[in-house]
Amino acid sequence: MISSVGFIGSGNVATQLSKAFKKAGISIEFIYSPSQNNCQLLANQVDCECLDSLKDLPKTNAVFLCVNDDYISELSNDLKNTEALIVHTSGSVGLDELKQNKNHGVFYPFQSISKTVEPNWKEIPLMIEGNSEKNSSSLITLANLISNQVIEADSEVRRTLHLTGVLVNNFTNHLASLSFELLQEKKLPKTLLYPLIEETARKVLLGSPDKTQTGPAIRKDQKTIQAHLNLLESKKELSAIYTLLTKSIQSSN
Amino acid sequence: MISSVGFIGSGNVATQLSKAFKKAGISIEFIYSPSQNNCQLLANQVDCECLDSLKDLPKTNAVFLCVNDDYISELSNDLKNTEALIVHTSGSVGLDELKQNKNHGVFYPFQSISKTVEPNWKEIPLMIEGNSEKNSSSLITLANLISNQVIEADSEVRRTLHLTGVLVNNFTNHLASLSFELLQEKKLPKTLLYPLIEETARKVLLGSPDKTQTGPAIRKDQKTIQAHLNLLESKKELSAIYTLLTKSIQSSN
Repeated sequence: MISSVGFIGSGNVATQLSKAFKKAGISIEFIYSPSQNNCQLLANQVDCECLDSLKDLPKTNAVFLCVNDDYISELSNDLKNTEALIVHTSGSVGLDELKQNKNHGVFYPFQSISKTVEPNWKEIPLMIEGNSEKNSSSLITLANLISNQVIEADSEVRRTLHLTGVLVNNFTNHLASLSFELLQEKKLPKTLLYPLIEETARKVLLGSPDKTQTGPAIRKDQKTIQAHLNLLESKKELSAIYTLLTKSIQSSN
Repeated sequence: MISSVGFIGSGNVATQLSKAFKKAGISIEFIYSPSQNNCQLLANQVDCECLDSLKDLPKTNAVFLCVNDDYISELSNDLKNTEALIVHTSGSVGLDELKQNKNHGVFYPFQSISKTVEPNWKEIPLMIEGNSEKNSSSLITLANLISNQVIEADSEVRRTLHLTGVLVNNFTNHLASLSFELLQEKKLPKTLLYPLIEETARKVLLGSPDKTQTGPAIRKDQKTIQAHLNLLESKKELSAIYTLLTKSIQSSN
């Protein structure tokens, strides 16, 4: 049973996860972060110590590494003599990057999390992995305290989920960004796109985007496709994106 | 002033637009559609005649062509002797495809419209174009009856808007569809993606997707990008999409 945790990192995930744990009755023992300012700010919020070094770590059941992917294995090494369950929260880093720690696991919240907006944890899928049944089970129990969508998954499955997150979040976000730019060039307000963006999400969430696809690609309306490509004549990259996604829609159906 | 209209077509746009006009006090004089079944169904709903031919058209101020893009110029020719304002509702067809008609214009609702869901017309941008100031002005007055977002725009601007619609709707929808497929292959439920899809739309609608971009592309996290491409090894097309959009995110920032 995990009843006390420490956090390394003081960014978006550390902030929201430590708050959610505290609310669920878990004791937050410490925050450590290279940014002492942020560390102290977060420590104040969850009522715990802000460490200035990783030496003499206070005893806890688990230590959560909420840091950039690149620092995970280095931190794992720094913490190799601790008995606590060492947990990373990354979508794409394998479990084995923590293998120097006797007890280790993954606790990956599948959502875009920011410091300023409190996430609706109950609905956020939490992907759990542990290096032993006992550790998996402890993390699942912990995860169930804050979310109704807890799933045990290995590193490859988690990586696939992360990949789909890139498609529906990062790429979708980028297409919106490119669209706003095109409108700006024609002196049109980006708000013109808002109703369509809302409607697009609403329809996708009905669950069958393959069946509700519309537009020139699926209609094989070559005249409109060509008219759009003409408008993109000076934008080679966007033109290539348009052509490739059009082809992909056509070959999916 | 337009106070009476007829419709050619009985699909999504004809259905919702005729209902909206009727509600706004405009008299619907007729529906004509090659599908007599749909024609009669819609005519019943808006309480008008369902024509079985385009000969001897009842007198109206305007005739709306709500048909596939490919039929617009043909219909324009069939109607070349009418005095009524002939209006098409397409995003990508130029005004000049109606040039055989003395009075002509465009009334383009920028939204994905379906028969079954009543659109929130007040919020839907309506892009208006007319072949004369008088005709533009008549269409603008009509548009203002149903929407608060009426914009006069020429065919190129309208085509650009339509293009951005393809990016934020058709392509976003397709990326979701590809993601659901990937999850299905790993036996994961597509509902795992729902919270992230909602959050993505919410953040885009804050208006600065260029500033709120996250993920491996913008972080130039080559390790994660490579891990994702490895997962897509057997999917050449999706792999190419991933690479191209990653590059585009990186070159935009």
